[in-house]
Parts: sequence; C-alpha cells; structure tokens
Amino acid sequence: MNFRVVSKIMGRLLMLEGFFMGLAVIVAVLYHEEDALPLLWASLITLLSGLVLGFLFREKNNGFGKKEGFLVVSLSWVVFSFFGTLPFLLTHSIPSFTDAFFETISGFTTTGASILNDLESLSHGVLVWRSITQWLGGMGIIVLSLAILPMLGIGGIQLFVAEVPGPSPDKLHPKVKETAKRLWAIYLVFTISEVFFLLLGGMDWFDSVNHSLTTMATGGFSTKQASIAAWPSSYIQYVIIFFMFLAGTNFTMAYFALKLKTRKVWKNEEFRVYTGFILLFILIFTIVLSVTRDLPFGDNLRDAAFQVVSIMTTTGFVSADYLAWVPFLIVLLFMLMFFGGSAGSTGGGIKIIRVWLTIKNSYLELKRIMHPNAVIPVRYNRRAVPERITSNILNFIVLYMLIFIFGVLVMAMLGLDMTSAMGAVAASLGNIGPGIGSVGPMDNFAHLPAIGKWFLGFLMLMGRLELFTVLLLLSPVYWRK
Amino acid sequence: MNFRVVSKIMGRLLMLEGFFMGLAVIVAVLYHEEDALPLLWASLITLLSGLVLGFLFREKNNGFGKKEGFLVVSLSWVVFSFFGTLPFLLTHSIPSFTDAFFETISGFTTTGASILNDLESLSHGVLVWRSITQWLGGMGIIVLSLAILPMLGIGGIQLFVAEVPGPSPDKLHPKVKETAKRLWAIYLVFTISEVFFLLLGGMDWFDSVNHSLTTMATGGFSTKQASIAAWPSSYIQYVIIFFMFLAGTNFTMAYFALKLKTRKVWKNEEFRVYTGFILLFILIFTIVLSVTRDLPFGDNLRDAAFQVVSIMTTTGFVSADYLAWVPFLIVLLFMLMFFGGSAGSTGGGIKIIRVWLTIKNSYLELKRIMHPNAVIPVRYNRRAVPERITSNILNFIVLYMLIFIFGVLVMAMLGLDMTSAMGAVAASLGNIGPGIGSVGPMDNFAHLPAIGKWFLGFLMLMGRLELFTVLLLLSPVYWRK
Repeated sequence: MNFRVVSKIMGRLLMLEGFFMGLAVIVAVLYHEEDALPLLWASLITLLSGLVLGFLFREKNNGFGKKEGFLVVSLSWVVFSFFGTLPFLLTHSIPSFTDAFFETISGFTTTGASILNDLESLSHGVLVWRSITQWLGGMGIIVLSLAILPMLGIGGIQLFVAEVPGPSPDKLHPKVKETAKRLWAIYLVFTISEVFFLLLGGMDWFDSVNHSLTTMATGGFSTKQASIAAWPSSYIQYVIIFFMFLAGTNFTMAYFALKLKTRKVWKNEEFRVYTGFILLFILIFTIVLSVTRDLPFGDNLRDAAFQVVSIMTTTGFVSADYLAWVPFLIVLLFMLMFFGGSAGSTGGGIKIIRVWLTIKNSYLELKRIMHPNAVIPVRYNRRAVPERITSNILNFIVLYMLIFIFGVLVMAMLGLDMTSAMGAVAASLGNIGPGIGSVGPMDNFAHLPAIGKWFLGFLMLMGRLELFTVLLLLSPVYWRK
Repeated sequence: MNFRVVSKIMGRLLMLEGFFMGLAVIVAVLYHEEDALPLLWASLITLLSGLVLGFLFREKNNGFGKKEGFLVVSLSWVVFSFFGTLPFLLTHSIPSFTDAFFETISGFTTTGASILNDLESLSHGVLVWRSITQWLGGMGIIVLSLAILPMLGIGGIQLFVAEVPGPSPDKLHPKVKETAKRLWAIYLVFTISEVFFLLLGGMDWFDSVNHSLTTMATGGFSTKQASIAAWPSSYIQYVIIFFMFLAGTNFTMAYFALKLKTRKVWKNEEFRVYTGFILLFILIFTIVLSVTRDLPFGDNLRDAAFQVVSIMTTTGFVSADYLAWVPFLIVLLFMLMFFGGSAGSTGGGIKIIRVWLTIKNSYLELKRIMHPNAVIPVRYNRRAVPERITSNILNFIVLYMLIFIFGVLVMAMLGLDMTSAMGAVAASLGNIGPGIGSVGPMDNFAHLPAIGKWFLGFLMLMGRLELFTVLLLLSPVYWRK
C-alpha cells in the first residue's frame, strides 16, 4: 500500500473542501452574520490540514493501483465528512459531534437525511455550507461512477456508463481528467439553469441557489423545515421535478443531448426504462390519489409527480405528507426507495439498470429451464451482456437486500419499530433522505439513538459507494498481501 | 402436449385423494358423527372423478416429457385442492367456497394459514381431513423435491438433494418409485414415532395423530384454536420441537442416519448450517427474552426454541404470542420466515442451502473484484458449484424477493396495512402459516377480502412449487411450440 500517494490525494481534496468552505464564509459576510468568523476558522483549519497532508511527502506518483484506489474512494468521503462538521460545530449550529457528523455525511453522500429541527434559525452561511456538501458529493459521484468505479471493476455497470469518450479500464490517467471536466461542466450548467428558472418563479436568490445545489446532487437538503412544501407554487415545483429528473439520468445522456445527438438518448435502453418507470408510477399515483383524495386533479398530478420523481431519483425533497396517503401508495413509495436513479447519475439506490436487467434475467431464467442446453444471455441495447456482469448485478442486488435486512435488525435492536427501522435503513442505504414511520417526510432523524446515527451514516456511505467499495476495505481479502 | 397421460395421472392421484378422504369417514364413524355421510359423499365423488379421468383414455405411456411434467406438478396441487374442499363444503364446516379453497390449498401446500375461527366446534372427521391434506402435501413435496424437480431442472438445488441412491436426471422412471417409497417409509416412521411420543406425554390419541400428521409435513394445522399453546407441557412442546427439526432436514439425511451412516450426516454442509442457524437463533432469542421478560429461564428457552424452529422449518405452530415480544425479535422472526428448511425436506421458504450459498457467494464476489481474472467458484461440501447452479440460485432469491414485493403491493391495494401485508405474503409464499400484523399468531386469515384469499392461495402454490414451476406455466415460453 502506497500511503504517500493516498495522503497526497487526501491533502489536495481537503484543500478543495477548505476552498468551498470559503464560499460559505463569503455568504455569511454578505449577510453580516456572526457565523462568518467561525466559518473562516473552519475553512482555515481544513485548508491547513490539506496543505500539511499534501506536502508532507515528496511526489512519487508511481505505485498507485487498485488497492490505493479503493482506499482513496472510501477515505475521501469519510475525511470530507469529518472536516465538514467544523462549520456546524464551530458555529454551534449543531453542538453534538454525532449529530454534526450525521448531517455532514448525509450531505456528502447526497442522502439528505437531517437531524435539524429548525432550519429557519440557522445562518445563511451555515445553510449554504450544508447545501455545498451535497453539491460537492454530487461532483464526487459523477467522477466516481463514470471514471473511477469502472476502473476498479465495481458494481457491474461499467459497460453501461462508459459509452461516451470516457476512460477505458486500463488507461485511466489521461482521460479521467477530460471526462470529469466535461461532465462537471454539464453539472454546473444544469445547476445554473435551475437557479435561473427558480428565480423566474419568484424564489429568492439564496433559496434558488441552495435548492439548485441540492437538486442536481439528488441530495434533498432544503433551507426550509417544510422542504419544498414551503413553496406551493406549481411552477416552482414542476421546475424542481424537471431538474430532479435530469439529475437522475446518466450524465453522458445529457452530454449527448447537449451535442444534439438526441437519437442516441432515445435509443438508450436505460433512459427509456427510467422514463417509462417514472411515467408509469406517476400515472398510478395520480389515479389512486384522485380516487382517494378530495383535491383538484392538478394537485393530485403534481403531488404524484413530485413524490415519485423525488423518491425514485433518491433526492428526497418533500412537497406533501405522503404518509397520510393510503397504505398502497406508502408501500409503493417504499418500494421505489430501492429503485434509484440511472447509472452515471448522481442518484443512489440499486439503480434502474440493475433492476431492469434483473427483471429481464428472471424472465430468461424460465427459458433456460425449458432449454437447459441453450446459452441465453440478457441483452442490453441489443447486445448480449457477459455472464460475469449479469452475475455481478445479481450479487449486488442480493447483497443490497442482505445489508438492508441486517440494517433493519440493527435499528430494531436499538428500539425502533419495524416500519421506522425499514424506513430509516432504506432511506439511508438508498441515499434518499426521508423514509417512512418515525423518520417520515414530516419528521427527521434527530430522535434516533447515537449509535443508530453512526450506523445509518455508515449505511449512507456503503450505499453511495456501491457497497463493494466499502465492504472490500472491511474484508480480509483486501488486506491480505 | 400429451393431455391423455396428464389426465391419466390426475385420475390416479384423485383416486388416492378419495381413498384418504375415506379415512376421514372412518374417523367420523368411530366418533358417531353426523359428518360421516357428507364425508362419504365427498370421498365417493372424488373417487368417481378419478376413475373417469383415469380410464377415459387408453393407456399410451410414451410422450411424457418435461412439458407434461410441469403441467402435472402444478395441476396436482390445484386439482387436489379443488376436490379437497368437498369435505368442508358438504359438511357445512366452511360454507364459503373461497374460504374452503383457501383452507385446502393452505393444507396441501403445507402452509397452515387458516380462516377458521373456532376449531373446537368442528367434527373429528373434518379435523382429521384437514390434517391429512397437510400430510399428503408433505408426501407430495418429498417426491417432488427429491425426484421430480431435479429431473425438470428446477430451482438449482438438484445437486444438493440427489446425493442418495436416487434418481439421476436422465433416468427417472425406474428409480423414482424406489426413492419415493424409501423416503415415504421414513416419513411414515417419523410420523408414527411422533404419535408415540406425544401419547407418552398425555396428549390424547386424536390430537397426537393430527399433530404428528401436520408436524412431519411442516404444515402447522392444529386441532385447537390456541395451537400448541393449548398444551403447556414442556415435554410435549419439546417433542414437537424435535420433530419439527427433523421435518426441516433433508430426508436423505434421515435415510443415512437410519442406516447409521452418521458421519455422512455430520459432514453434510447444509445439515451443519441448518443446525447452526437454529442453535444461533435459539440462543439470541433466549438471551433477549430473558432480558426483556420476567419469566423463568426455562420458559424463555422453550418459547425461543419453539418459535425459532416452528418458523424456520416453516411449520407455523404457535406456542406463544410472539407479536407481544420486543420489536427486535419480531423483526428477526419475520426475517426467519424467508430462510425455510433444508432442500429435500417438507419445509418451504427460500431454503437454507440457497441462503447459505448466496452469503458465501457474496463474500467471494469481493475476492472476484480484487482478482478479476481468477475463476472463483462457490464451494459446497468442498466441491466447486457450477456457475450455472450459482446463477440459478441467485435468480431464485431475486425472484422470491420480486414476488414478495409484488405480493405486498397487491395486499396493500386490497387495504391491508404494510406490516400485515408483509406478514401475510411472507407467511403464504414461505408456506409458514401465521405471519405478523393482523395475520399474526393470535389471529387468522378470515378477515381478508376474497380476492386476497385467492391471491394468497396462489402465492402458497408458487412458494411450494419453487416458483419456477408455476411461473413457467404462466409464461409464453412454455406454451410456444
């Protein structure tokens, strides 16, 4: 293990984090807030730590392999979250370290689960830092899922995200920067566009920026305790629905679309399935809401579209108390918490491509039983998917379920009832935010015991890093020479 | 499709069913019950239908292949269940056809879910017929899982059940009868032994016989509304625990044990894992019950052992109201509903072997990521499991979860709350009986809407026939020429 290179990279990343904390300082200064000083301290401490780590060792770029890659990936999120607590702690916005860490890792993993009870009492500086954690997390995920994980061979979806001029598994260095820059540019353009459209709808500058940062990351942190329900405007809600939808698509599709290669987008199987699922579920929700609620059709459609898109993209914004809906819709929403966004998006969860290929494969298994000697591979975009990938996808889903079950047991052991335990674990592992039961859309995670918060933070990390990345670090397989 | 042979086989099976109904007639006569006459009618109708079907066509034994096999398997359970309603309907014990069918298919699939509210008011004749449906179902499962399904290539566990002098996939006919007879003999010996031990404990003849019939089938129908809680005797409960444990083991293990080849049993990986899981969970339950309940240690141990073994073997007898336990134990019991018994036992569920190999495989997947070019197969009993089998097992588990989720959605649509929906579906699909929520150990399935009962009956059938058997019949793959 080449710890020098690892430390160097962590140093550079910390400097980046310190720089972004600086933006929160500027916001606090603009609003003449007392928090400006502690935020400045947080930024300086982070920058300095980064400097020390980054320049502690002489440059030695050789010896960066798979093992180092796995360590750097998991470590980045953990180290970012540790330093990211400083703004909360030094401003006393969140006095407890456990709570501050929960909030920060929930930010960097773009989960959006919160322990805060009164967002409106926080300073603008702290609120914007909270949103920035998600936006940075989203940036991290883009480069992770489109460049780093494919190289590390994680998750079995390398085939489906690397269709653009992107990194090939063996030559990472020259192209990673290129791809990352290109996709970050798209991420930035989308974020700025959303700010523009939200401003048009009458949302103020501060709220527009914050919500755009957390929409594009499929994060879901809001500046209001009531989340998006604080803006009953149909226009604003539809704008957010549209950008959540964008954030849940493969960013390479956006790249094609911006290059006007729309045919490539429409022909992409995952994009079609993703869109199809969303439309189907919006339809079902709208119908059931219309039958069971005494509200105008427009409200039912909007609430349906908002919650379906918010949960499926794993954003977690809330525009209505869905726990007040009929049990069928609650169960359906809970199920959607497992779907997740597209591969190569900022969304979490299992991911549409895995769910879809698994459903297809289950059907093919029937064929295989009838014709035991035939080789019947799953097809994606009309090409046969290699057996190795299919099996990895199945493994991923089974592992996801095993971790989910284990998580529910742990939360039940800590005293949560079954529904709340399932809600908390599904929402954390899937990087969604609000769950069901006592961690529903109108509640938050503050009331959980400390161990529960650490454990859920760990689940967020696992979910965000496609399970295997974190599990490998915990297994003897990784550490054996 | 050779419908002649299919009809012939169904005819023979119906005659068998009619014969067993005759036993219920004898019981009714012995107890001087009015039900004797309607039971006789039921028996005669069934026998006659069997005769007509069986001798309608001339013998033509050629042309019995895989397709016919699938049809016969699913059809047998359905036809048995239809005719099995006659004793309930003609005696007016269950006036509604929906309810009678639910009760009967719950019997033949060895599930044990019931719609009856007052078992003590039924005649001995009807009660014994109810128990016989389970015992017959168990007989069917033994021959199905050890002889027929391996031939049809269903479920991916053919390797693990066919270790005895049993059928080889290509030559079914000569050996199926041999294997079946041998294993039925064991089944019968175990049943008689249990009767003996229960009589020793002071249970009367009638109850001893009924409970032995339903224990060995891992069925769980009782003659008392309170189930086994009606016999607080420790001895009786431990006898039932022991026989439930036996019923959940691979019957070929019992065959070895009876031949005093105990080393083969101890060295069998599934048997060790099955025993290990049961001991582990009994330990956990005993500890948690001791900490949270103010009862003597002996009671906690017994309740723990009884419920763990009853649920894990998918029997479904109840000795205590487990829904009154702490949420952690309820969640854990609910999780156990998915485990199921050993392959080649009468137990349902996913089956230990599949759960175990999947857990092992998940761990190996980490190795595969570190060494992408190495071939790393799962091992069972120290031998490498072929890729095809591993993948079939993963498919089975994923399909099981998909059907579970679909089932919960359907039940939620019918108005059940989430917990009850999950309980009803897990208990039906896993062939257990009582679930959680409103279909818990102290309740029954009577209050469900009619569509829900038919749907759950269908899930019982799917779960019992290892999913693929039934799904195949419903898919175009099967019917295409």
